[in-house]
Amino acid sequence: MKALCWFGPGDVRVVEVPKPTLQAGGDVILRVTRAAVCGSDLHLLHGKIPKLAPGTVLGHEFVGVVEEVGLAVSGLQVGQRCAAAMFVACGRCLQCWSGQHPRCSEYAMFGMGDLMGGLAGGQAEYVRVPLADMTLCPIPDAMSDDAALFTGDILATAYTACLQSGIRPGDLVAVVGAGPVGLLTVSCAQLFGAARVFAVDPISERREIARQLGAVPIDPAQGDPAASLRQLTGGSRADVVIEAVGNRETLELAWRLGATGATVALVGILVDEPWPQSAGQAWMRNLTIRTVIGQPYRHRQTLFRLIESGVLQPQSIISQSVPLSQAAEAYAAMDARRTLKAVLRPD
Amino acid sequence: MKALCWFGPGDVRVVEVPKPTLQAGGDVILRVTRAAVCGSDLHLLHGKIPKLAPGTVLGHEFVGVVEEVGLAVSGLQVGQRCAAAMFVACGRCLQCWSGQHPRCSEYAMFGMGDLMGGLAGGQAEYVRVPLADMTLCPIPDAMSDDAALFTGDILATAYTACLQSGIRPGDLVAVVGAGPVGLLTVSCAQLFGAARVFAVDPISERREIARQLGAVPIDPAQGDPAASLRQLTGGSRADVVIEAVGNRETLELAWRLGATGATVALVGILVDEPWPQSAGQAWMRNLTIRTVIGQPYRHRQTLFRLIESGVLQPQSIISQSVPLSQAAEAYAAMDARRTLKAVLRPD
Amino acid sequence: MKALCWFGPGDVRVVEVPKPTLQAGGDVILRVTRAAVCGSDLHLLHGKIPKLAPGTVLGHEFVGVVEEVGLAVSGLQVGQRCAAAMFVACGRCLQCWSGQHPRCSEYAMFGMGDLMGGLAGGQAEYVRVPLADMTLCPIPDAMSDDAALFTGDILATAYTACLQSGIRPGDLVAVVGAGPVGLLTVSCAQLFGAARVFAVDPISERREIARQLGAVPIDPAQGDPAASLRQLTGGSRADVVIEAVGNRETLELAWRLGATGATVALVGILVDEPWPQSAGQAWMRNLTIRTVIGQPYRHRQTLFRLIESGVLQPQSIISQSVPLSQAAEAYAAMDARRTLKAVLRPD
Amino acid sequence: MKALCWFGPGDVRVVEVPKPTLQAGGDVILRVTRAAVCGSDLHLLHGKIPKLAPGTVLGHEFVGVVEEVGLAVSGLQVGQRCAAAMFVACGRCLQCWSGQHPRCSEYAMFGMGDLMGGLAGGQAEYVRVPLADMTLCPIPDAMSDDAALFTGDILATAYTACLQSGIRPGDLVAVVGAGPVGLLTVSCAQLFGAARVFAVDPISERREIARQLGAVPIDPAQGDPAASLRQLTGGSRADVVIEAVGNRETLELAWRLGATGATVALVGILVDEPWPQSAGQAWMRNLTIRTVIGQPYRHRQTLFRLIESGVLQPQSIISQSVPLSQAAEAYAAMDARRTLKAVLRPD
Repeated sequence: MKALCWFGPGDVRVVEVPKPTLQAGGDVILRVTRAAVCGSDLHLLHGKIPKLAPGTVLGHEFVGVVEEVGLAVSGLQVGQRCAAAMFVACGRCLQCWSGQHPRCSEYAMFGMGDLMGGLAGGQAEYVRVPLADMTLCPIPDAMSDDAALFTGDILATAYTACLQSGIRPGDLVAVVGAGPVGLLTVSCAQLFGAARVFAVDPISERREIARQLGAVPIDPAQGDPAASLRQLTGGSRADVVIEAVGNRETLELAWRLGATGATVALVGILVDEPWPQSAGQAWMRNLTIRTVIGQPYRHRQTLFRLIESGVLQPQSIISQSVPLSQAAEAYAAMDARRTLKAVLRPD
Repeated sequence: MKALCWFGPGDVRVVEVPKPTLQAGGDVILRVTRAAVCGSDLHLLHGKIPKLAPGTVLGHEFVGVVEEVGLAVSGLQVGQRCAAAMFVACGRCLQCWSGQHPRCSEYAMFGMGDLMGGLAGGQAEYVRVPLADMTLCPIPDAMSDDAALFTGDILATAYTACLQSGIRPGDLVAVVGAGPVGLLTVSCAQLFGAARVFAVDPISERREIARQLGAVPIDPAQGDPAASLRQLTGGSRADVVIEAVGNRETLELAWRLGATGATVALVGILVDEPWPQSAGQAWMRNLTIRTVIGQPYRHRQTLFRLIESGVLQPQSIISQSVPLSQAAEAYAAMDARRTLKAVLRPD
Repeated sequence: MKALCWFGPGDVRVVEVPKPTLQAGGDVILRVTRAAVCGSDLHLLHGKIPKLAPGTVLGHEFVGVVEEVGLAVSGLQVGQRCAAAMFVACGRCLQCWSGQHPRCSEYAMFGMGDLMGGLAGGQAEYVRVPLADMTLCPIPDAMSDDAALFTGDILATAYTACLQSGIRPGDLVAVVGAGPVGLLTVSCAQLFGAARVFAVDPISERREIARQLGAVPIDPAQGDPAASLRQLTGGSRADVVIEAVGNRETLELAWRLGATGATVALVGILVDEPWPQSAGQAWMRNLTIRTVIGQPYRHRQTLFRLIESGVLQPQSIISQSVPLSQAAEAYAAMDARRTLKAVLRPD
Repeated sequence: MKALCWFGPGDVRVVEVPKPTLQAGGDVILRVTRAAVCGSDLHLLHGKIPKLAPGTVLGHEFVGVVEEVGLAVSGLQVGQRCAAAMFVACGRCLQCWSGQHPRCSEYAMFGMGDLMGGLAGGQAEYVRVPLADMTLCPIPDAMSDDAALFTGDILATAYTACLQSGIRPGDLVAVVGAGPVGLLTVSCAQLFGAARVFAVDPISERREIARQLGAVPIDPAQGDPAASLRQLTGGSRADVVIEAVGNRETLELAWRLGATGATVALVGILVDEPWPQSAGQAWMRNLTIRTVIGQPYRHRQTLFRLIESGVLQPQSIISQSVPLSQAAEAYAAMDARRTLKAVLRPD
């Protein structure tokens, strides 16, 4: 079968690899009908994630149709259309019930290499899905693959970020970065009653989408965004700041956008970036800092309901849909920020 | 001064009464600039609230300008524009901190007669406001009196109902009654991420406003609303039902609209109505029943923020604005359901 | 094999029945090592639960050792010691994630007859456990069967009651009934910081155990318990009342023990009992009424931790341990309130 | 009158200063009956807090009797025994209702110099208390001054830390430092159902008190406390870590005690200490970091109830009670860790 594989920094290509087979009773082989390229895939592209072996199939955001079912799968049928979570976890242990799936002994992430369990990814024609009863979730009949696609990763992550950062009705919320996660965060923040959501991004197309999704856009080219925020609010800063990029500069900006007593949620993947302030300075400002791991298991069915009712329209951020065989070009376009969110469809 | 007084069942009139004077250090004399007629005032009109003495000045939903300030008032100035809470409470005791103001030893409600503390109401030119530092809240400069008016009662009540009934993102919410409280509940339910809000009311104008505010209207003349709800949802009933009328029939309907495990919030004033089901039946259906008392102290500043940002537009339900001297006619129009929400302005 | 079966009102007997066999891939056959007689079994004994067929094996509170494993079981091994939940549910649907298992399409309860899914119970040598990966939970090695036994029903129920009734630190809590559920509720209420827990029961032995578990006992023979409560608290009533019996008199008492604004949680099984007050009267008192269904799936691993650390010692309420063949006598003793909580062990 | 004043690093002395007088309508003059020396006073002693003018009266933890009442005080009488909050805030603005008192425009802290509002402290015979209706809280008659003393600062802080760090029943909690705040945190953590609380401190007397209060003590002299924790728990680290010292080493230890996904609450005063890990490393470990400011306004009446019922006994940590005139010696003893918590009484 065809799959998008990583061969070294900057080098991803669609090549022929063996079709996966059932290995454990709980496995499902899923025929992939949509796979997204995620911002975190760009970290992989650049070789920033350790322990990634050349030839690894990438992709952790995908939906598809059940092709084969292991003996221990109780709730799924061949032919069923399903959304996958970005990771595998048992869903039954104390950690999973607490929403701390990375502490589950079964935890593994698709397409992230040996650092996270060595599971082949879903930017491929087929993918093996372990513990499929939990990992997969049937998609409602009337919902398109595109609408369901992000419930397994970036929509669940945006939702979890808003939930865990404790947005309360009336809050002023600032979102740093209007990429795919940032834009879905703009939508989700309104589910929790944010009075106003501000979205900072240097790219005008992204600010425009943010505006359409309900945010007040802030252009960093027009001056320090923290000053812009104060101007727009009559002197206030944000009660909750959600950092959805993950580099040193955006982290520093997130810090300055938050009011005394603010919660700063870190959604963008950080690897070794330093803090903008010392621990003592954060204490003096009474900050709360939450790092966020999305919880698709717990929230995707809630998200399905919100998509079905039209409150959320996550597919609106898809900027490009290309055949799997053109996946490398999609990576390049996303990496160059020429496209917002690329989706791969079967050839 | 002029004031709307109750003289017996069905008999309210604007008459001349003495202008109130400061009686305790914490008092403020407020010159009323807007007073609303509340659904609960209609209970008073009909003599359904015990201990109401003829000559009582009615009205517990009003805003105005500080005219005189007692010696013990520390945070308010003459000339300041303020919104009043519908009740007086100390705001400092364990009960007030828990949001259970009726248990506060200082609790009294404006314009409800001796049953609730014997405090003269605000449908008048002036009103005495005890514990004014807590009872009054300055209105932001850019906010109109009409926009601020309902933060002291029905908007706070609608918001409290949604908060206490535990609406979670993705919930299906049914609101029984699209009167003033029901309509504001439709708006507030969306602050908590309701997937869909359904509003049941026999009056087509009210259903239309509900629709504009984001609800799916249900007309009881088109058949049993519980059947309509199931049809609209593909077989589901509501996760949360908010009863905003307060009579036997609407209570019975609320019960049937709720799913197994639902929360039914009772916002409409009930006096002696029976339960639609036995305790045993409610147990078998795993219902949670919450009776709701609005909490303006805790929530009005949050509501101010949501009004300032345009997320809430409570003034949109005002159907009629008349001079104080025509207050009796406004009562009659509301009682006949010829008008939705009448507001009194100075002559 | 031997099993305790119901043959008609008042008639339960241990008889020989066929040993259960695997019927679906997700099944486990469990060799029962401990089964408890639950208060709700007494409702069955008396024929108060409809649709109960003669010959039904009773028992929904049990632990055991995995004897046989279906093909679709992924997380359990033969020989593993496990605690069962009182019911079966998929654990993955929106309802299960919301803790509303009775709305799950797979919901069935052990040993309750056709009203609740027709699943044979665990007061037997063996029991078939569907969806075993979710229904069963491995018991920590150092924990005795007796200590783990109640996590599947009454301890989970007591815990859920305290959680859902919203006990906050400093609250005054009244528990009506110091039977097995009431006593565990006394323990659990302290996990949420109750300032004082009051336990009402007419049986002195039960009051004494309540006292040992941290409650202030109240003897109804010494006068109206509501008066006793006010005397013990200097005039206050309870912020939270938990009714753990389930008859008309105890329901009525629960109502009177609660303060204005109280939450009354109904844990005792109610079938058709009337409300102590009208809906209108409950509204005037600002009550919240929660009916409680225990959530073993979500909470049993938390409970394991609390048992392991010694904070909870649920086995302390076991008053009698008898061989399975004497189960009918155990029913009789519990029904006559001659024993508090009887446990059945293998012959 | 006599008061403990700061004159420079290491130099505090009891000297004669003018007795305070009423300056605003909301003021009360309180005759101090107990004042504590707080750990944060030692920061002042050493000159670590900027903008501290020589001659400043210190002390922000005190109780007393109302001596004089301003014209705008509505709820307090001369002769009333009251506990003070450590800070002044209006208690009515959006920030105060959100528990973010430092953002209130009236915010000022007693005895901390010009950095925090320049309010004279309570280690004196008398102290002026602004906004006294909110700042002071009457002490229940049966409660001693010593029992009530810490509700205005360290007990409220310990309680707020446990609440805000989200301790859930069953959690493993580690407290770094068994000084006054750490020990009260040990008590408060049990109000939220901690399965086990571990307390790390090098001083054996403090570990012994921690043990009496319910903690498992850990002695850093016996090896790395993080290794000891894993050994005591069979390999687990803490779900919640509460850092109650505030220096670089204890901060570093707190980090290592927390599990993946842990919440680390910072209660100890930090000024310019660096983080133990980079932002990226904290993200990889999925940490939540909360800095804690105690909320006496919101919680002290809850704390009163818990003290009245005997659940909390904060006075048990008082190690020394000396006359005000010996306050400098008390500072020296606390600074040298020769005494745990010194309390000043009138001469």
